[in-house]
Amino acid sequence: MTDTTDTLEGRLSRIHEALVDDDFAVIDEVLDDLEPAEIALLLESLPLAARTRLWERVSQDVDGEVLLHVHDEVRSTLIEDMDDHEIVAATSNMDTSDLAELFEDLPQQVAEDMLRSMDELQRTRLKEALAFEEDSAGRLMRTDTVSVRADVTLETVQRFLRWKNQSIPDNTDALMVVDRDGIFLGVLPLARLVSQSSELAVADVLESDIDTVSVAMKSWDVATLFQTHDLVSAPVVDENGLLLGRIVIEDIVDVIREGSDQALMNMAGLDEEEDLFAPIVPSAKRRAVWLGINLMTAFLAAWVIGRFEAALEQVVALAVLMPIVASMGGIAGSQTLTLAIRGLALGQISRTNSNWLMRKEIGISLINGVLWALVVAVIATLWFQDVRIGGIIAVALIINMLAAGIAGIAIPLGLKRLGIDPALSGSVVLTTVTDVIGFMAFLGLATVFLL
Amino acid sequence: MTDTTDTLEGRLSRIHEALVDDDFAVIDEVLDDLEPAEIALLLESLPLAARTRLWERVSQDVDGEVLLHVHDEVRSTLIEDMDDHEIVAATSNMDTSDLAELFEDLPQQVAEDMLRSMDELQRTRLKEALAFEEDSAGRLMRTDTVSVRADVTLETVQRFLRWKNQSIPDNTDALMVVDRDGIFLGVLPLARLVSQSSELAVADVLESDIDTVSVAMKSWDVATLFQTHDLVSAPVVDENGLLLGRIVIEDIVDVIREGSDQALMNMAGLDEEEDLFAPIVPSAKRRAVWLGINLMTAFLAAWVIGRFEAALEQVVALAVLMPIVASMGGIAGSQTLTLAIRGLALGQISRTNSNWLMRKEIGISLINGVLWALVVAVIATLWFQDVRIGGIIAVALIINMLAAGIAGIAIPLGLKRLGIDPALSGSVVLTTVTDVIGFMAFLGLATVFLL
Repeated sequence: MTDTTDTLEGRLSRIHEALVDDDFAVIDEVLDDLEPAEIALLLESLPLAARTRLWERVSQDVDGEVLLHVHDEVRSTLIEDMDDHEIVAATSNMDTSDLAELFEDLPQQVAEDMLRSMDELQRTRLKEALAFEEDSAGRLMRTDTVSVRADVTLETVQRFLRWKNQSIPDNTDALMVVDRDGIFLGVLPLARLVSQSSELAVADVLESDIDTVSVAMKSWDVATLFQTHDLVSAPVVDENGLLLGRIVIEDIVDVIREGSDQALMNMAGLDEEEDLFAPIVPSAKRRAVWLGINLMTAFLAAWVIGRFEAALEQVVALAVLMPIVASMGGIAGSQTLTLAIRGLALGQISRTNSNWLMRKEIGISLINGVLWALVVAVIATLWFQDVRIGGIIAVALIINMLAAGIAGIAIPLGLKRLGIDPALSGSVVLTTVTDVIGFMAFLGLATVFLL
Repeated sequence: MTDTTDTLEGRLSRIHEALVDDDFAVIDEVLDDLEPAEIALLLESLPLAARTRLWERVSQDVDGEVLLHVHDEVRSTLIEDMDDHEIVAATSNMDTSDLAELFEDLPQQVAEDMLRSMDELQRTRLKEALAFEEDSAGRLMRTDTVSVRADVTLETVQRFLRWKNQSIPDNTDALMVVDRDGIFLGVLPLARLVSQSSELAVADVLESDIDTVSVAMKSWDVATLFQTHDLVSAPVVDENGLLLGRIVIEDIVDVIREGSDQALMNMAGLDEEEDLFAPIVPSAKRRAVWLGINLMTAFLAAWVIGRFEAALEQVVALAVLMPIVASMGGIAGSQTLTLAIRGLALGQISRTNSNWLMRKEIGISLINGVLWALVVAVIATLWFQDVRIGGIIAVALIINMLAAGIAGIAIPLGLKRLGIDPALSGSVVLTTVTDVIGFMAFLGLATVFLL
C-alpha cells in the first residue's frame, strides 16, 4: 500500500538532512524509491546549490523523464548542469512530443548536436512537432498510435498484436481504425476486441461516433473537451481527417493543473512557471515590475487624497477613517472579480448573461454596503463623537462597494475583450478603481458637508 | 471535428436568446447536441428562473448524469425542481459511488423512498459507500471491477469476457487479478491479454508491481499519487489487501480541478461550490462574514493611525502618503504568500526547507524594498519639498516590505501547523500585518523625526 503525502514530506526531510550531511547512501536509497515525477517535486523544493548536488545523483535512466516533469524555470537550471552527451543520452528514447517540449530549452549547440545524432525519421518527426504552435493539440499529441484496417477480422488483429507483442504503448485502451489512405474511421476498444467473437470484422464492431481533436485546437480547449465528454484518449486528425496521433488524459491532467495554477499565480503578478527557489536577483527583478505598476496606482490614490488637503488639515478623523472605505471596497471587489475570473475560465460568462450577473452583484453590493455602512457609521460616530462623520463614511462606503461590484464584473469582461488576461491585470485595475472612488467619495463628501 | 469553446459560447448565446423568446424548438435542438457535462455548464451559467425553465427541457435519460456534473449548490436548486419519481428515475441506473455523492443532497423523504425502491444488494452497497468518509478513496472508487483468478489461462479469460460480452465497464484498461479470498494480486492489462500467447496462465503475465490505494486515503493524496505515478486507474484495497474497487482518472481530474479552484476561491473568501447565480440574499449573507472579518482588520489599522493624530494634524503630507507604505507591503506580501500557498499545496515546503525559503524571500524584499524606497523618496521629497519626509517614507517602506516577506512565509506555515487552510485565512492575516506595520513604521518615524 502506498501513501505518498505522508512519505513525500518525510522523504523531503530525509533528503534535506542527507544533503546537509553529504550522506550519499541515504540520498541514493531515497531516490531509488521514487518515480520521476516525485524526483521532480523534490528537486523543485531545493535551493539551487542543493538541487545541483541532488541532480548529480539522479540515475541517467530517469533524468529525461524528470526533466519533463519540472517547471520550465527549474528545467533550465537542471539542463545547465548537464554536459552535452548526458543531454543527448537523456533524450534519446523520448517520444517526439516530449522531445519537442524540451527542445526549445536546450542550449543551441546541444540542440544542433542532437539533431545530427538523430536518424532521418526522428528528425522529420521532431521538426513536424516543432512546427505546431505551442499550446496546441499538435504539441500535446503522441504519435505512438496502433492502427488497424476496417476490413480485417478481430482474429487477424489479435494475431497482429501477438506478433507486435510488447510494443503496444502504455495506456492504449483502444486501437485506431483507418482506411488505406490513413483517414480516421473510428476506434476499436480493446474491451471489445477481447469480448467479441473473433470472426467478426473490425468494421462490424468499431466505434465510429468518436470525438476527434483537430491538430490546431488550443490545449485548453482540448482539456475542456476531455472534461465535458469524459474522455480518456482522443484521436488527433488534420483538416482532411488524416490520423496524426492521439492525446491521452495524463497529458491533459497537466494542462488542467497548469491552467488553474496560472490563474492563482497571475492574480498575484507571478509567472506560473516561477521556481520556488529561483535565484534572488532575477526573482526580485521580475517582481519589481509588478510592484512598480502597483506603486503607480498607489501614487494615483495619494494624489486623489492630496486634492483634499484642506479637509484633512481641519478634521484629522478623516485621515484615520479613510483606509476603511478603500479597504472594504477592495475586498468586496476582489470577491466579485474572482467569481468572474473563474466563470470566464469555465466559459460560463458571455455577453448574453453578463447583465444578469451584473444585476446580481449590484444587489449583493447594496445589501452588504448598507449593512456594513450602518456598523461603520455607529462606530465612527461613537469614536469621534460626530454624527456627521458617521453619516459621511456610511454614504462613501455604500458608493464604493457599489462601484466595486460593478467594476468586479466590468473590468474582467473589458480586459478579456481587449485580449488581456483578466487574472493577471484584473486586481490592479480593480484596486485602482476602489482606492480612487473610495478616497474621493469619502473626502469629497467631507469637504462638502463638514467644512 | 469538434471545437467546443467556440461553440460553447455560441450555444450559450443561442440558449439565452431562446429562453428569452420561449423558443423551445431551438432549446431542444441545442440540448440534443450536448453531453451531460456541457448541459451542466450551461445550467450553471443561467440565473435561477431561466435555469429552472431549461432544466425542465432536459431529457430524463441524462438528468442523473447532469446532476453529478454540477456544483453542490446548483445541484440543490435543480433537485428542488424535481418531483420524487423523477429523482428516483434519474438515479436508478447510477453507479453506487455516484449515488452516494448525490444521496446527501436529496430531500429526506425522497432519500427514504429511494432506499425502499432498491433491492437488497444495492441498498447494502450504498450504505457501505456512505460509511466511507467524504473526500476519501472509498467515496471515489467504483465497484465495477472485472476480476479474474491467477491460475486460469488467457484463453479462459477471453472466453469468460466473450461470455460477459458488452458488460465490460467503460475505460477498463486492465482486469483485476485476485486469489480465492478476493485478495488483490495484480492486474492483467488488456494490452497484454491481446498480445500474449493464449496458452499462458494469468499468473505468468500479470503485473504485480502495482500502486494500490488504501480505502481510507484522502482524495487529494490519491490525486497526487495519480499525478506522480502517471496512473490511469488504481485498485482500491482494504487493510487486509482485499480488493474493494478501482479509482479511474476521470474522477481524479475532478478532484484536481476542484482542488485548484478551491485555493483561488478561498483566497477571496469564497466557497468553491459557490453558484455563479446564487440568489442575492444568501450570497450577500455568506460574503458578509468575510467583509466583517476584514472590517475588523481595517478598524485595527484605523486605530493604529489614530494613535498618531498629533503627527497627522501637524503634517498633512503624512495622511496623503501613508496608504503607499501599506499598499506596497500588501502587494509584496501577497506575492510571497501565493508562492508559499502553492508550494504547500504541492507538498514542496516543509520545516526543513522553510528557512532557505525565508532567506530567499528576505533577500528579494530587501532588494525591492531599497529600489522602490529610493523611487518613492525622490517623488515624495519633490512633491512636499521636504527631504525628511522622503527619508522617513523610504525607511518605512523598507521595514514594511521586509515584514511582508517574512510574514508571507511565516503566516501560511503557522496556519498550516494550526490546521487552518492558509489559502482561506492567509490574506486577511497578512493584510493585517502589512497595514499595522506600515502605518506604525511611517507615522511612528514621522512622530520621532518630524515633530
